[in-house]
Amino acid sequence: MPNPTAAILIIGDEILSGRTREGNAHFLAGKLVEQGIDCREIRVIPDDHAGIVAAVRALSSAHDHVFTSGGIGPTHDDITADAVADAMGVGIDVRDDARAILAAHYAARDTEFTASRLRMARIPDGATLIDNPVSAAPGFSCGNVHVMAGVPNIFQAMVAGLLPRLTGGAPVISRNWQVMAAESSVADDLRLIAGQFGDLTFGSYPFVQEGRYGTNLVVRGQDPAQVQAGLAALQAAFPEGK
Amino acid sequence: MPNPTAAILIIGDEILSGRTREGNAHFLAGKLVEQGIDCREIRVIPDDHAGIVAAVRALSSAHDHVFTSGGIGPTHDDITADAVADAMGVGIDVRDDARAILAAHYAARDTEFTASRLRMARIPDGATLIDNPVSAAPGFSCGNVHVMAGVPNIFQAMVAGLLPRLTGGAPVISRNWQVMAAESSVADDLRLIAGQFGDLTFGSYPFVQEGRYGTNLVVRGQDPAQVQAGLAALQAAFPEGK
Repeated sequence: MPNPTAAILIIGDEILSGRTREGNAHFLAGKLVEQGIDCREIRVIPDDHAGIVAAVRALSSAHDHVFTSGGIGPTHDDITADAVADAMGVGIDVRDDARAILAAHYAARDTEFTASRLRMARIPDGATLIDNPVSAAPGFSCGNVHVMAGVPNIFQAMVAGLLPRLTGGAPVISRNWQVMAAESSVADDLRLIAGQFGDLTFGSYPFVQEGRYGTNLVVRGQDPAQVQAGLAALQAAFPEGK
Repeated sequence: MPNPTAAILIIGDEILSGRTREGNAHFLAGKLVEQGIDCREIRVIPDDHAGIVAAVRALSSAHDHVFTSGGIGPTHDDITADAVADAMGVGIDVRDDARAILAAHYAARDTEFTASRLRMARIPDGATLIDNPVSAAPGFSCGNVHVMAGVPNIFQAMVAGLLPRLTGGAPVISRNWQVMAAESSVADDLRLIAGQFGDLTFGSYPFVQEGRYGTNLVVRGQDPAQVQAGLAALQAAFPEGK
Protein backbone atom coordinates (compact mmCIF):
# COMPACT_ATOMS: atom_id res chain seq x y z
CA MET A 1 0.00 0.00 0.00
CA PRO A 2 1.42 3.41 -0.89
CA ASN A 3 2.29 5.79 1.93
CA PRO A 4 -0.18 8.52 2.91
CA THR A 5 0.57 11.86 1.24
CA ALA A 6 0.67 15.32 2.75
CA ALA A 7 1.01 19.00 1.96
CA ILE A 8 2.27 21.75 4.26
CA LEU A 9 0.55 25.15 4.03
CA ILE A 10 2.40 28.11 5.57
CA ILE A 11 0.22 31.18 6.07
CA GLY A 12 1.83 34.57 6.57
CA ASP A 13 2.71 37.82 4.81
CA GLU A 14 5.97 37.99 6.76
CA ILE A 15 7.38 34.99 4.85
CA LEU A 16 6.41 36.33 1.41
CA SER A 17 7.93 39.74 2.16
CA GLY A 18 11.27 38.16 3.00
CA ARG A 19 11.06 39.45 6.58
CA THR A 20 11.05 35.99 8.15
CA ARG A 21 12.90 32.90 6.97
CA GLU A 22 10.44 30.05 7.32
CA GLY A 23 11.61 26.99 9.23
CA ASN A 24 8.46 25.10 10.25
CA ALA A 25 8.05 23.39 6.86
CA HIS A 26 11.62 22.09 6.98
CA PHE A 27 11.12 20.81 10.54
CA LEU A 28 7.83 19.05 9.74
CA ALA A 29 9.10 17.61 6.43
CA GLY A 30 11.82 15.76 8.33
CA LYS A 31 9.32 14.40 10.87
CA LEU A 32 6.92 13.22 8.12
CA VAL A 33 9.67 11.24 6.37
CA GLU A 34 10.42 9.43 9.63
CA GLN A 35 6.75 8.53 10.00
CA GLY A 36 6.31 7.30 6.42
CA ILE A 37 4.06 10.17 5.29
CA ASP A 38 5.12 11.51 1.87
CA CYS A 39 5.22 15.31 1.78
CA ARG A 40 4.32 16.22 -1.81
CA GLU A 41 4.03 19.99 -1.63
CA ILE A 42 4.81 23.02 0.49
CA ARG A 43 2.92 26.26 -0.15
CA VAL A 44 3.37 29.69 1.38
CA ILE A 45 0.43 32.09 0.97
CA PRO A 46 -0.62 35.50 2.37
CA ASP A 47 -2.97 36.28 5.27
CA ASP A 48 -5.93 36.49 2.90
CA HIS A 49 -9.26 34.77 3.57
CA ALA A 50 -10.17 33.79 -0.01
CA GLY A 51 -6.64 32.61 -0.73
CA ILE A 52 -6.53 30.41 2.38
CA VAL A 53 -9.95 28.91 1.56
CA ALA A 54 -8.86 28.07 -2.01
CA ALA A 55 -5.53 26.56 -0.96
CA VAL A 56 -7.05 24.47 1.85
CA ARG A 57 -9.72 23.11 -0.52
CA ALA A 58 -7.19 22.26 -3.24
CA LEU A 59 -4.65 20.64 -0.94
CA SER A 60 -7.08 18.80 1.34
CA SER A 61 -8.76 17.14 -1.63
CA ALA A 62 -5.43 16.19 -3.26
CA HIS A 63 -3.67 14.77 -0.18
CA ASP A 64 -4.36 12.57 2.84
CA HIS A 65 -3.21 15.28 5.23
CA VAL A 66 -2.72 19.05 5.18
CA PHE A 67 -0.67 20.71 7.92
CA THR A 68 -0.99 24.47 8.34
CA SER A 69 1.26 26.88 10.23
CA GLY A 70 0.38 30.43 11.23
CA GLY A 71 -2.56 32.76 11.68
CA ILE A 72 -4.25 31.33 14.80
CA GLY A 73 -3.20 34.00 17.31
CA PRO A 74 -5.29 36.76 18.93
CA THR A 75 -4.82 39.63 16.46
CA HIS A 76 -6.89 40.98 13.56
CA ASP A 77 -4.65 39.29 10.97
CA ASP A 78 -5.15 35.84 12.53
CA ILE A 79 -7.80 34.50 10.17
CA THR A 80 -6.75 30.89 9.58
CA ALA A 81 -9.37 29.20 11.80
CA ASP A 82 -12.30 30.96 10.12
CA ALA A 83 -10.87 30.33 6.64
CA VAL A 84 -10.34 26.61 7.33
CA ALA A 85 -13.92 26.30 8.62
CA ASP A 86 -15.19 27.95 5.41
CA ALA A 87 -12.99 25.73 3.25
CA MET A 88 -14.26 22.58 4.96
CA GLY A 89 -17.89 23.76 4.91
CA VAL A 90 -18.45 23.75 8.67
CA GLY A 91 -19.42 26.42 11.19
CA ILE A 92 -17.08 27.99 13.71
CA ASP A 93 -17.62 29.53 17.14
CA VAL A 94 -16.01 29.84 20.55
CA ARG A 95 -15.99 26.30 21.99
CA ASP A 96 -16.37 25.51 25.68
CA ASP A 97 -13.39 23.16 26.04
CA ALA A 98 -11.03 25.56 24.27
CA ARG A 99 -12.37 28.50 26.32
CA ALA A 100 -11.84 26.52 29.54
CA ILE A 101 -8.20 25.80 28.62
CA LEU A 102 -7.53 29.48 27.97
CA ALA A 103 -9.48 30.65 31.05
CA ALA A 104 -7.42 28.39 33.29
CA HIS A 105 -4.20 29.56 31.64
CA TYR A 106 -4.95 33.26 32.18
CA ALA A 107 -6.39 32.75 35.67
CA ALA A 108 -3.17 31.02 36.75
CA ARG A 109 -1.24 34.06 35.50
CA ASP A 110 -3.63 36.63 37.00
CA THR A 111 -4.14 37.98 33.45
CA GLU A 112 -7.39 39.31 32.04
CA PHE A 113 -9.20 37.01 29.57
CA THR A 114 -9.95 39.69 26.94
CA ALA A 115 -12.13 39.51 23.83
CA SER A 116 -8.98 39.29 21.67
CA ARG A 117 -7.73 36.32 23.68
CA LEU A 118 -11.18 34.67 23.43
CA ARG A 119 -10.73 34.63 19.61
CA MET A 120 -8.21 31.83 20.15
CA ALA A 121 -11.06 29.61 21.44
CA ARG A 122 -12.84 29.76 18.06
CA ILE A 123 -12.84 26.16 16.81
CA PRO A 124 -14.54 24.75 13.68
CA ASP A 125 -17.48 22.44 14.38
CA GLY A 126 -16.43 18.83 14.91
CA ALA A 127 -12.70 19.57 15.07
CA THR A 128 -10.32 17.77 17.46
CA LEU A 129 -8.08 20.00 19.58
CA ILE A 130 -4.29 19.84 19.28
CA ASP A 131 -2.58 20.42 22.61
CA ASN A 132 -0.39 23.51 23.10
CA PRO A 133 1.88 22.87 26.08
CA VAL A 134 3.72 26.16 25.53
CA SER A 135 1.08 28.88 25.62
CA ALA A 136 -2.25 27.01 26.00
CA ALA A 137 -4.13 28.30 22.90
CA PRO A 138 -4.91 25.02 21.08
CA GLY A 139 -4.55 24.04 17.45
CA PHE A 140 -7.10 21.69 15.88
CA SER A 141 -7.66 18.99 13.27
CA CYS A 142 -10.68 19.74 11.05
CA GLY A 143 -11.19 16.76 8.77
CA ASN A 144 -7.77 16.05 7.29
CA VAL A 145 -6.52 19.62 7.93
CA HIS A 146 -4.29 20.05 10.96
CA VAL A 147 -4.06 23.68 12.04
CA MET A 148 -1.07 24.77 14.12
CA ALA A 149 0.63 27.94 15.35
CA GLY A 150 3.42 29.68 13.44
CA VAL A 151 5.72 30.45 16.38
CA PRO A 152 8.40 27.76 15.93
CA ASN A 153 8.56 26.35 19.48
CA ILE A 154 4.75 26.16 19.67
CA PHE A 155 4.53 24.60 16.19
CA GLN A 156 7.07 21.95 17.17
CA ALA A 157 5.25 21.15 20.42
CA MET A 158 1.95 20.78 18.53
CA VAL A 159 3.58 18.48 15.95
CA ALA A 160 4.88 16.31 18.79
CA GLY A 161 1.34 15.94 20.11
CA LEU A 162 -0.32 15.44 16.74
CA LEU A 163 1.88 12.99 14.84
CA PRO A 164 1.35 9.96 17.11
CA ARG A 165 -2.38 10.20 16.22
CA LEU A 166 -1.68 9.82 12.48
CA THR A 167 -1.13 6.52 10.70
CA GLY A 168 2.09 6.45 8.72
CA GLY A 169 3.56 4.06 6.19
CA ALA A 170 6.99 2.64 5.58
CA PRO A 171 9.60 5.29 6.39
CA VAL A 172 11.72 6.41 3.47
CA ILE A 173 15.35 5.58 4.12
CA SER A 174 18.12 7.61 2.50
CA ARG A 175 21.87 7.14 2.28
CA ASN A 176 24.41 9.72 1.20
CA TRP A 177 27.67 9.25 -0.77
CA GLN A 178 29.79 12.36 -1.12
CA VAL A 179 32.06 12.71 -4.15
CA MET A 180 34.53 15.57 -4.66
CA ALA A 181 33.63 15.98 -8.33
CA ALA A 182 31.35 18.30 -10.28
CA GLU A 183 27.79 17.09 -10.80
CA SER A 184 28.39 16.93 -14.55
CA SER A 185 31.26 14.46 -13.97
CA VAL A 186 29.03 11.95 -12.21
CA ALA A 187 25.89 12.40 -14.33
CA ASP A 188 26.52 9.58 -16.83
CA ASP A 189 27.27 6.86 -14.26
CA LEU A 190 24.46 8.08 -12.01
CA ARG A 191 21.94 7.81 -14.83
CA LEU A 192 23.01 4.20 -15.50
CA ILE A 193 22.71 3.25 -11.84
CA ALA A 194 19.32 4.94 -11.50
CA GLY A 195 18.11 2.89 -14.47
CA GLN A 196 19.12 -0.35 -12.73
CA PHE A 197 17.08 0.26 -9.54
CA GLY A 198 13.46 1.00 -10.45
CA ASP A 199 12.21 1.09 -6.84
CA LEU A 200 14.82 3.58 -5.66
CA THR A 201 15.25 7.27 -6.40
CA PHE A 202 18.67 8.81 -6.88
CA GLY A 203 19.37 12.50 -6.38
CA SER A 204 22.53 14.56 -6.87
CA TYR A 205 23.19 17.78 -4.95
CA PRO A 206 26.20 19.84 -6.02
CA PHE A 207 28.16 22.02 -3.61
CA VAL A 208 31.36 24.05 -3.50
CA GLN A 209 33.78 23.46 -0.61
CA GLU A 210 37.03 25.42 -0.24
CA GLY A 211 36.90 26.27 -3.94
CA ARG A 212 36.39 22.66 -5.08
CA TYR A 213 33.26 21.22 -6.66
CA GLY A 214 31.58 18.32 -4.89
CA THR A 215 28.34 16.38 -5.23
CA ASN A 216 26.26 14.58 -2.64
CA LEU A 217 24.68 11.50 -4.20
CA VAL A 218 21.58 10.40 -2.32
CA VAL A 219 19.71 7.10 -2.74
CA ARG A 220 16.19 6.81 -1.27
CA GLY A 221 13.76 3.95 -0.89
CA GLN A 222 11.59 2.02 1.53
CA ASP A 223 13.33 -1.38 1.44
CA PRO A 224 16.53 -1.27 3.54
CA ALA A 225 18.23 -4.06 1.54
CA GLN A 226 17.51 -2.32 -1.77
CA VAL A 227 18.77 1.02 -0.46
CA GLN A 228 21.93 -0.73 0.70
CA ALA A 229 22.37 -2.28 -2.77
CA GLY A 230 21.89 1.15 -4.36
CA LEU A 231 24.48 2.66 -2.05
CA ALA A 232 26.90 -0.16 -2.92
CA ALA A 233 26.44 0.61 -6.62
CA LEU A 234 27.29 4.28 -5.97
CA GLN A 235 30.34 3.26 -3.95
CA ALA A 236 31.55 0.93 -6.72
CA ALA A 237 31.09 3.62 -9.40
CA PHE A 238 32.73 6.37 -7.33
CA PRO A 239 35.22 4.58 -5.07
CA GLU A 240 36.95 7.82 -4.05
CA GLY A 241 33.81 9.07 -2.23
CA LYS A 242 32.92 8.91 1.43
CA MET B 1 -1.09 51.16 -10.80
CA PRO B 2 -0.76 48.06 -8.65
CA ASN B 3 2.64 46.44 -8.40
CA PRO B 4 3.46 43.42 -10.57
CA THR B 5 2.87 40.11 -8.78
CA ALA B 6 5.09 37.05 -8.63
CA ALA B 7 5.28 33.46 -7.46
CA ILE B 8 8.40 31.48 -6.57
CA LEU B 9 8.45 27.80 -7.55
CA ILE B 10 11.08 25.63 -5.84
CA ILE B 11 11.62 22.26 -7.54
CA GLY B 12 13.32 19.46 -5.65
CA ASP B 13 12.66 16.24 -3.74
CA GLU B 14 15.45 17.15 -1.31
CA ILE B 15 13.41 20.03 0.15
CA LEU B 16 10.24 17.96 0.58
CA SER B 17 12.14 15.14 2.29
CA GLY B 18 13.52 17.56 4.88
CA ARG B 19 17.09 16.85 3.74
CA THR B 20 17.78 20.43 2.65
CA ARG B 21 16.51 23.62 4.26
CA GLU B 22 15.50 25.86 1.37
CA GLY B 23 16.90 29.39 1.34
CA ASN B 24 16.52 30.65 -2.24
CA ALA B 25 12.87 31.64 -1.79
CA HIS B 26 13.72 33.70 1.28
CA PHE B 27 16.58 35.42 -0.55
CA LEU B 28 14.50 36.22 -3.64
CA ALA B 29 11.46 37.35 -1.62
CA GLY B 30 13.61 40.04 0.00
CA LYS B 31 14.93 41.20 -3.39
CA LEU B 32 11.43 41.35 -4.90
CA VAL B 33 10.15 43.59 -2.10
CA GLU B 34 12.99 46.03 -2.77
CA GLN B 35 12.06 46.11 -6.45
CA GLY B 36 8.33 46.63 -5.89
CA ILE B 37 7.29 43.19 -7.13
CA ASP B 38 4.70 41.57 -4.81
CA CYS B 39 5.50 37.92 -4.08
CA ARG B 40 2.10 36.28 -3.60
CA GLU B 41 3.03 32.61 -3.32
CA ILE B 42 5.91 30.23 -2.78
CA ARG B 43 5.50 26.59 -3.80
CA VAL B 44 7.82 23.63 -3.32
CA ILE B 45 7.13 20.61 -5.53
CA PRO B 46 8.90 17.32 -6.41
CA ASP B 47 11.10 16.51 -9.42
CA ASP B 48 8.08 15.26 -11.38
CA HIS B 49 7.35 16.26 -14.97
CA ALA B 50 3.55 16.41 -14.81
CA GLY B 51 3.63 18.22 -11.47
CA ILE B 52 6.05 20.88 -12.74
CA VAL B 53 3.96 21.41 -15.89
CA ALA B 54 0.77 21.88 -13.85
CA ALA B 55 2.37 24.25 -11.34
CA VAL B 56 4.07 26.38 -14.02
CA ARG B 57 0.79 26.69 -15.93
CA ALA B 58 -1.20 27.65 -12.84
CA LEU B 59 1.33 30.15 -11.48
CA SER B 60 2.33 31.76 -14.81
CA SER B 61 -1.30 32.49 -15.68
CA ALA B 62 -2.07 33.87 -12.20
CA HIS B 63 0.99 36.14 -11.81
CA ASP B 64 3.10 38.58 -13.78
CA HIS B 65 6.27 36.62 -13.05
CA VAL B 66 7.21 33.10 -11.97
CA PHE B 67 10.71 32.41 -10.68
CA THR B 68 11.87 28.79 -10.50
CA SER B 69 14.81 27.29 -8.63
CA GLY B 70 16.28 23.84 -9.22
CA GLY B 71 16.39 21.03 -11.72
CA ILE B 72 18.49 22.53 -14.54
CA GLY B 73 21.73 20.62 -13.96
CA PRO B 74 23.24 17.76 -15.98
CA THR B 75 21.73 14.70 -14.25
CA HIS B 76 18.74 12.48 -14.99
CA ASP B 77 16.61 14.18 -12.33
CA ASP B 78 17.13 17.63 -13.89
CA ILE B 79 13.86 17.93 -15.80
CA THR B 80 12.81 21.54 -15.22
CA ALA B 81 13.73 22.94 -18.66
CA ASP B 82 11.71 20.31 -20.55
CA ALA B 83 8.75 20.67 -18.19
CA VAL B 84 8.70 24.48 -18.52
CA ALA B 85 8.80 24.17 -22.34
CA ASP B 86 5.82 21.78 -22.19
CA ALA B 87 3.95 24.05 -19.80
CA MET B 88 4.46 27.08 -22.04
CA GLY B 89 3.62 25.12 -25.22
CA VAL B 90 6.96 25.60 -26.98
CA GLY B 91 9.62 23.20 -28.29
CA ILE B 92 13.00 22.64 -26.67
CA ASP B 93 16.38 21.62 -28.05
CA VAL B 94 20.09 22.25 -27.62
CA ARG B 95 20.64 25.87 -28.64
CA ASP B 96 23.79 27.16 -30.33
CA ASP B 97 24.46 30.14 -28.06
CA ALA B 98 24.04 28.08 -24.89
CA ARG B 99 26.21 25.29 -26.35
CA ALA B 100 28.93 27.83 -27.23
CA ILE B 101 28.95 29.19 -23.65
CA LEU B 102 29.37 25.69 -22.22
CA ALA B 103 31.92 24.62 -24.85
CA ALA B 104 34.11 27.63 -24.04
CA HIS B 105 33.77 26.96 -20.32
CA TYR B 106 34.87 23.32 -20.58
CA ALA B 107 37.59 24.05 -23.16
CA ALA B 108 39.12 26.63 -20.79
CA ARG B 109 39.22 23.95 -18.08
CA ASP B 110 40.46 21.17 -20.37
CA THR B 111 37.33 19.20 -19.46
CA GLU B 112 35.39 16.94 -21.80
CA PHE B 113 32.06 18.35 -23.06
CA THR B 114 30.01 15.19 -22.47
CA ALA B 115 26.44 14.37 -23.49
CA SER B 116 25.32 14.93 -19.89
CA ARG B 117 26.87 18.41 -19.89
CA LEU B 118 25.24 19.16 -23.26
CA ARG B 119 21.84 18.67 -21.60
CA MET B 120 22.44 22.01 -19.90
CA ALA B 121 22.30 23.73 -23.33
CA ARG B 122 18.67 22.63 -23.84
CA ILE B 123 16.70 25.89 -24.02
CA PRO B 124 12.98 26.34 -24.82
CA ASP B 125 12.27 28.01 -28.16
CA GLY B 126 12.24 31.79 -27.95
CA ALA B 127 13.65 31.96 -24.41
CA THR B 128 16.15 34.62 -23.27
CA LEU B 129 19.26 33.32 -21.51
CA ILE B 130 20.06 34.27 -17.91
CA ASP B 131 23.79 34.65 -17.32
CA ASN B 132 25.56 32.26 -14.94
CA PRO B 133 28.86 33.87 -13.93
CA VAL B 134 29.61 31.04 -11.48
CA SER B 135 29.53 27.84 -13.54
CA ALA B 136 28.51 28.95 -17.06
CA ALA B 137 25.38 26.79 -17.60
CA PRO B 138 22.71 29.45 -18.24
CA GLY B 139 19.21 29.89 -16.87
CA PHE B 140 16.49 31.31 -19.09
CA SER B 141 13.30 33.36 -19.22
CA CYS B 142 10.54 31.59 -21.19
CA GLY B 143 7.59 33.97 -21.40
CA ASN B 144 7.04 35.19 -17.85
CA VAL B 145 8.79 32.15 -16.32
CA HIS B 146 12.36 32.73 -15.14
CA VAL B 147 14.25 29.46 -14.69
CA MET B 148 17.29 29.42 -12.42
CA ALA B 149 19.63 26.96 -10.72
CA GLY B 150 19.04 25.59 -7.22
CA VAL B 151 22.63 25.87 -5.93
CA PRO B 152 22.39 28.99 -3.73
CA ASN B 153 25.41 30.96 -4.97
CA ILE B 154 24.46 30.31 -8.61
CA PHE B 155 20.81 31.19 -7.92
CA GLN B 156 21.85 34.46 -6.31
CA ALA B 157 24.16 35.36 -9.20
CA MET B 158 21.38 34.66 -11.72
CA VAL B 159 18.92 36.81 -9.73
CA ALA B 160 21.44 39.66 -9.81
CA GLY B 161 21.58 39.44 -13.59
CA LEU B 162 17.84 39.00 -14.11
CA LEU B 163 16.17 41.54 -11.82
CA PRO B 164 17.44 44.72 -13.57
CA ARG B 165 15.59 43.47 -16.69
CA LEU B 166 12.21 43.40 -14.90
CA THR B 167 9.98 46.41 -14.33
CA GLY B 168 9.05 46.85 -10.69
CA GLY B 169 6.57 49.06 -8.90
CA ALA B 170 6.70 51.12 -5.75
CA PRO B 171 8.80 49.30 -3.16
CA VAL B 172 6.95 48.25 -0.04
CA ILE B 173 8.40 49.99 3.00
CA SER B 174 8.12 48.41 6.43
CA ARG B 175 8.88 49.70 9.90
CA ASN B 176 9.19 47.60 13.04
CA TRP B 177 8.19 48.45 16.62
CA GLN B 178 9.16 45.89 19.24
CA VAL B 179 7.10 45.59 22.41
CA MET B 180 7.99 43.33 25.33
CA ALA B 181 4.41 42.11 25.77
CA ALA B 182 2.46 39.04 24.68
CA GLU B 183 0.69 39.31 21.32
CA SER B 184 -2.66 38.98 23.10
CA SER B 185 -1.86 42.09 25.17
CA VAL B 186 -1.44 44.28 22.10
CA ALA B 187 -4.21 42.79 19.95
CA ASP B 188 -7.01 45.24 20.90
CA ASP B 189 -5.02 48.43 20.31
CA LEU B 190 -3.45 47.02 17.15
CA ARG B 191 -6.86 46.24 15.68
CA LEU B 192 -8.00 49.84 16.32
CA ILE B 193 -4.89 51.28 14.68
CA ALA B 194 -5.17 48.94 11.67
CA GLY B 195 -8.75 50.15 11.20
CA GLN B 196 -7.57 53.77 11.03
CA PHE B 197 -5.06 53.25 8.20
CA GLY B 198 -6.76 51.59 5.24
CA ASP B 199 -3.74 51.80 2.91
CA LEU B 200 -1.32 50.16 5.37
CA THR B 201 -1.05 46.60 6.61
CA PHE B 202 -0.18 45.83 10.21
CA GLY B 203 1.32 42.52 11.30
CA SER B 204 2.25 41.19 14.72
CA TYR B 205 4.95 38.58 15.24
CA PRO B 206 5.29 37.12 18.73
CA PHE B 207 8.58 35.84 20.12
CA VAL B 208 10.09 34.64 23.38
CA GLN B 209 13.33 36.23 24.58
CA GLU B 210 15.04 35.15 27.80
CA GLY B 211 11.77 33.68 29.03
CA ARG B 212 9.74 36.85 28.36
CA TYR B 213 7.03 37.27 25.74
CA GLY B 214 7.54 39.97 23.13
CA THR B 215 5.86 41.02 19.89
CA ASN B 216 7.25 42.71 16.81
CA LEU B 217 4.65 45.05 15.35
CA VAL B 218 5.25 45.71 11.67
CA VAL B 219 3.59 48.38 9.53
CA ARG B 220 3.88 48.10 5.73
CA GLY B 221 2.89 50.36 2.87
CA GLN B 222 4.10 52.13 -0.25
CA ASP B 223 3.73 55.78 0.84
CA PRO B 224 6.62 56.75 3.15
CA ALA B 225 4.61 59.48 4.93
CA GLN B 226 1.70 57.10 5.61
CA VAL B 227 4.05 54.40 6.91
CA GLN B 228 5.64 56.99 9.20
CA ALA B 229 2.18 57.97 10.47
CA GLY B 230 1.34 54.32 11.11
CA LEU B 231 4.59 53.86 13.02
CA ALA B 232 3.83 56.97 15.08
CA ALA B 233 0.43 55.52 15.99
CA LEU B 234 2.12 52.30 17.18
CA GLN B 235 4.63 54.31 19.20
CA ALA B 236 1.86 56.36 20.82
CA ALA B 237 -0.14 53.24 21.72
CA PHE B 238 2.89 51.31 23.04
CA PRO B 239 5.31 53.96 24.31
CA GLU B 240 7.47 51.41 26.13
CA GLY B 241 8.52 49.80 22.81
CA LYS B 242 11.64 50.35 20.77
